[in-house]
Amino acid sequence: MSHNSFGHLFRVTTWGESHGPALGCVVDGCPPRLEISEAEIQTWMDKRKPGQSKYTTQRQEPDQVRILSGVMEENGKLLTTGTPISLMIENIDQRSKDYGEIKSRYRPGHADLTYDAKYGIRDYRGGGRSSARETAARVAAGAIARKVIPNIEIIGAMIQIGDLRIDPNVTWDQATINSNAFFCPDPNAVDQWAEYLDKIRKAGSSIGAVIEVRAKGVPAGLGAPIYAKLDQDICSNFMSINAVKGVEIGDGFKTAELTGEENADQIRIGKDGQPEFLSNHAGGILGGISSGQEIVARFVVKPTSSILTPRQSINSAGEEVDVMTKGRHDPCVGIRAVPIGEAMMALTLADHHLRHKAQCG
Amino acid sequence: MSHNSFGHLFRVTTWGESHGPALGCVVDGCPPRLEISEAEIQTWMDKRKPGQSKYTTQRQEPDQVRILSGVMEENGKLLTTGTPISLMIENIDQRSKDYGEIKSRYRPGHADLTYDAKYGIRDYRGGGRSSARETAARVAAGAIARKVIPNIEIIGAMIQIGDLRIDPNVTWDQATINSNAFFCPDPNAVDQWAEYLDKIRKAGSSIGAVIEVRAKGVPAGLGAPIYAKLDQDICSNFMSINAVKGVEIGDGFKTAELTGEENADQIRIGKDGQPEFLSNHAGGILGGISSGQEIVARFVVKPTSSILTPRQSINSAGEEVDVMTKGRHDPCVGIRAVPIGEAMMALTLADHHLRHKAQCG
Amino acid sequence: MSHNSFGHLFRVTTWGESHGPALGCVVDGCPPRLEISEAEIQTWMDKRKPGQSKYTTQRQEPDQVRILSGVMEENGKLLTTGTPISLMIENIDQRSKDYGEIKSRYRPGHADLTYDAKYGIRDYRGGGRSSARETAARVAAGAIARKVIPNIEIIGAMIQIGDLRIDPNVTWDQATINSNAFFCPDPNAVDQWAEYLDKIRKAGSSIGAVIEVRAKGVPAGLGAPIYAKLDQDICSNFMSINAVKGVEIGDGFKTAELTGEENADQIRIGKDGQPEFLSNHAGGILGGISSGQEIVARFVVKPTSSILTPRQSINSAGEEVDVMTKGRHDPCVGIRAVPIGEAMMALTLADHHLRHKAQCG
Amino acid sequence: MSHNSFGHLFRVTTWGESHGPALGCVVDGCPPRLEISEAEIQTWMDKRKPGQSKYTTQRQEPDQVRILSGVMEENGKLLTTGTPISLMIENIDQRSKDYGEIKSRYRPGHADLTYDAKYGIRDYRGGGRSSARETAARVAAGAIARKVIPNIEIIGAMIQIGDLRIDPNVTWDQATINSNAFFCPDPNAVDQWAEYLDKIRKAGSSIGAVIEVRAKGVPAGLGAPIYAKLDQDICSNFMSINAVKGVEIGDGFKTAELTGEENADQIRIGKDGQPEFLSNHAGGILGGISSGQEIVARFVVKPTSSILTPRQSINSAGEEVDVMTKGRHDPCVGIRAVPIGEAMMALTLADHHLRHKAQCG
Repeated sequence: MSHNSFGHLFRVTTWGESHGPALGCVVDGCPPRLEISEAEIQTWMDKRKPGQSKYTTQRQEPDQVRILSGVMEENGKLLTTGTPISLMIENIDQRSKDYGEIKSRYRPGHADLTYDAKYGIRDYRGGGRSSARETAARVAAGAIARKVIPNIEIIGAMIQIGDLRIDPNVTWDQATINSNAFFCPDPNAVDQWAEYLDKIRKAGSSIGAVIEVRAKGVPAGLGAPIYAKLDQDICSNFMSINAVKGVEIGDGFKTAELTGEENADQIRIGKDGQPEFLSNHAGGILGGISSGQEIVARFVVKPTSSILTPRQSINSAGEEVDVMTKGRHDPCVGIRAVPIGEAMMALTLADHHLRHKAQCG
Repeated sequence: MSHNSFGHLFRVTTWGESHGPALGCVVDGCPPRLEISEAEIQTWMDKRKPGQSKYTTQRQEPDQVRILSGVMEENGKLLTTGTPISLMIENIDQRSKDYGEIKSRYRPGHADLTYDAKYGIRDYRGGGRSSARETAARVAAGAIARKVIPNIEIIGAMIQIGDLRIDPNVTWDQATINSNAFFCPDPNAVDQWAEYLDKIRKAGSSIGAVIEVRAKGVPAGLGAPIYAKLDQDICSNFMSINAVKGVEIGDGFKTAELTGEENADQIRIGKDGQPEFLSNHAGGILGGISSGQEIVARFVVKPTSSILTPRQSINSAGEEVDVMTKGRHDPCVGIRAVPIGEAMMALTLADHHLRHKAQCG
Repeated sequence: MSHNSFGHLFRVTTWGESHGPALGCVVDGCPPRLEISEAEIQTWMDKRKPGQSKYTTQRQEPDQVRILSGVMEENGKLLTTGTPISLMIENIDQRSKDYGEIKSRYRPGHADLTYDAKYGIRDYRGGGRSSARETAARVAAGAIARKVIPNIEIIGAMIQIGDLRIDPNVTWDQATINSNAFFCPDPNAVDQWAEYLDKIRKAGSSIGAVIEVRAKGVPAGLGAPIYAKLDQDICSNFMSINAVKGVEIGDGFKTAELTGEENADQIRIGKDGQPEFLSNHAGGILGGISSGQEIVARFVVKPTSSILTPRQSINSAGEEVDVMTKGRHDPCVGIRAVPIGEAMMALTLADHHLRHKAQCG
Repeated sequence: MSHNSFGHLFRVTTWGESHGPALGCVVDGCPPRLEISEAEIQTWMDKRKPGQSKYTTQRQEPDQVRILSGVMEENGKLLTTGTPISLMIENIDQRSKDYGEIKSRYRPGHADLTYDAKYGIRDYRGGGRSSARETAARVAAGAIARKVIPNIEIIGAMIQIGDLRIDPNVTWDQATINSNAFFCPDPNAVDQWAEYLDKIRKAGSSIGAVIEVRAKGVPAGLGAPIYAKLDQDICSNFMSINAVKGVEIGDGFKTAELTGEENADQIRIGKDGQPEFLSNHAGGILGGISSGQEIVARFVVKPTSSILTPRQSINSAGEEVDVMTKGRHDPCVGIRAVPIGEAMMALTLADHHLRHKAQCG
């Protein structure tokens, strides 16, 4: 069962709420003798951390990771031991008072109503378990996953915000992506995006976005034909991220309009004697199994429903009320979804790497 | 692990290849005392069966289901006993000779190359495990799943073929959908679609499609906040269907362009005292949990790569070759994907129904 | 979940009842390119088959295995392809009439009452799902598991029947074990056992037994510290066999009476430079992980409750009745439990072999 | 997969080593709105806590539990919310220096050698992951499990230490069991046991023990026929406890010597109109499913291998050495195994309660 776990051989179980004392995860099945450190995990955490620009929530959280188990020092290095790795991040800047008045009011577009319908109780403070803070644990786990697949390069970017898209032909460059507040790979789009999002932010509104994650260096053979398709697990793991409403691989929804001649990537023998594909409509995966091409996946993040405009809703007593969110929030949660998407890609590939090794290694 | 299984409490394990003696599945965890029959399962099988119009493969398979275990007769009715239900469908019309020449040629867009890369062997006859025949087992299992959730109405339709879309405002009607060869809910689109697909078919080409599946009567509360989100599992299960390259819930990829004000569905109290949503951008799921609204999900099916036009590829010896598919194939696999999508929706909901009952029932 | 499955990476799902048309299993996760054949599986089936001596049930079942999927012929050999292997055994000699009168009578010591309490329905014919026929599927799957761990030699034997025990110092020899109807490794015990069981059989009674299974050639490192201990999984899998009421590893229950000095196996360096243990109280497993020593495990099988003596019981209407079993049964189910125990050992080791390879290989 | 998790619907994942900063667990799938508190969990922790008599290790650990997630206050009560419950216990009294010299020496009977063989690294301080400290997390989780099955009374006791057994006919009484240092239900045995164990302790030796756990009030119907047998899961969970070498249900290994007439529990209709068994050889479970009778299960704990007598062994360099343990240890780990066994019984029953509710509720 997987209420709060994912992955099979590299398995992550997360726990924690937005306004509890801490949140974290347990990483189980990690190979032994991988070198990890809190400092290195922290570099990934910092990429996701809130409050780094005016375009993300102003909640101040250091998001300091502690490794509580599963490691042993040897010659000054911290090595994994093969036992479960427990990672904990304390919550510092909770400000519970911000959320008091939505205790019984169901914010439209949020999970307030459905949590109450399911459980008859919920931690209403800051979104509780549904808060994007949960994703901090994924990024921490993802930092360890990268150690399992050291030769795979994962790079994510925001490619669309509202109806503004990047130039699809722009070459991705990590330095460019990191140099702006939007993880945008298209330097020509940044100013326009900034202006656009400023307007959204000042209006107390929010907007959706599309994130693309690419993985280079994935060997052919990861995945399985049915029910453990690599693309299925990438999509499933992306869908588990808060606010995601859709996922696609390669040409995705565009393939509806393609013919078989247009869609199927033709193959030649490359200079190195290896298969060389003439295109990558498939996004690097055929029949659920990686082909050796770059993996290309995308997900869409809806606009956060935490906005300043009053909205019609009901409360837990069944009365009609208006709801307006006053807390600190992201005008575009897509920005911080970039490092989260990268982490989920790393975690999916690490798991499938181990699965492939088990059956066919 | 789930190489060939899905679902947790209502769990399905499928087996079989296109040209083996049979294929089937084991349904585990089914509640006892549900009335089922081979005849009733067959009605669903017949909806998916190939060879029913000129728009699907001409392979002739009766797709006759046999129930091998998990049932007991009582007063003339066949009832589930709570033990595993084994379902088997024999393959009749294999014609293995059709496939001999692609034994060592990797068809572009197919899983031939990736299977060989992973396993070092594959059943090349008719696509082997990757054949759409595997989905017959899903439809059979789906027929049993419907018994677990008898008050939920599931209806699927093809809403786009190539660049032809249905009128989004058309009201769906099961009789209309069943009355044409495309499971198209828009009677005004049928003739145009027929003409379009005829052209594709005669050219030995193929085209993609988008399928939408709706579920009415889903009670609020199914799903879970994280990693067991109802929308995540719907998407994951859709992604496990052959040729699917993308999935979305509610407004899906359109939410990238929506503001928080546009996207969040406002709530009022309906005449029956129950929550009434003023729109359904969310597709019936908030925070991973069903809201009581209609669930709306979509998936895109790429064009089959089995086409008559010769394509550049390589063979297993690493030589460059041309590949042309001669077997019997579907010009648009999206048509037969409709009953498969419905089955996957039923299976996902049955599983989550049991999961919800376990924790919160 | 695992209602009817076991193993994680080498995963077996069984289905079928005693008097249904067939029974079988799906083996998932098997490595590709292992050579298997129906004939070879059959040699293991024949060891478990009923009706081979007067000491086992006289039901005549050929127990013919069919491989329905997951294999491909290559150069005259049948090789696994890495996809699920479906194995089916048809039931031939059902004689349902034998069981009619126990339809509503709960046989003491059987699962009749508990099935009805749980499911409200049961297949009463021949024990239904609880019949020892289910174990045929395990033996078939075990034959494939052995291919995954070709260098491990597994040997089982009956070491106690009633209060008759073998000489604990006797050397085990496969030829001796196979040469008698009891899988007894002590040639001096066979005549006495035969006389003893003849008496039991003629009285229409039954008796319990203890089976020991040894595995030689298990490399150090299989298993995991907690919750995936190799001994835990061996015990769990043994406990899943019908009629088993206890399991132990190494010295087992005798360790209650040992001191730390007596129990801990001391270690020296052997001639080959490898660790050499001076004793094997541990049964080859330390901290849940194999040590390289021979693995020694035991399970006890209760006497079957199918006996000719009338017993006090109740029926499904809540009335007090007498029950006497007339069907064909085993006076000592421990005999046929030997090949089943071997199969479960093979399956457990194959699964842990793959698990170890995944994490540490 | 379950390297460090157990249970399916009430699922526990534990983490932590003996000498790390902390240890703990995540409890997933807990039903919502159960009242829990750190104070109440603590009462169970205190029962297992070391250093409570001269017969257990003198390590001083307060074993203070913190609830980090999954709960919400409502009207002064702490209620579960249905989200994962993270429990943490900080390690206080580590004294790592005690263990320095066994860093590279493999203690006979311990997992030192096998950990190194598997992982190539281990946390040698205090047994690392293999330390009995891990069981603190189980006891904490068990306290929550009891809330899921409030009407079931679980009572454990030590029934054998060395070759000293309790009178099997003694009536169990919780007050008596709690009144002595051995959780011994037989008041006449206590003095003799004290004298016996004193001798063991003063000699720096250790001894094994047998623990019995009973569960009263278990409704008929928990469990499943095969691979999810209630007795299988009880045994598996007991086997996961450190140092356990065998498990049995009801009459266990004694059933080898029983005839079918002696073993099968006859049934009558009781005064309340319910089935009444005339004996309980089965230990409350028939065909893997609870019968409504008291569940009776037993496990044996080997003597700890941490003893003062020097023992022959090898070190990680492959040299022959002598090993003597100087740390603080339990002369009979069976004592503290009693509350652990109770916790594992509670956890198993809570999981099966939810599983039964899902399929048949």
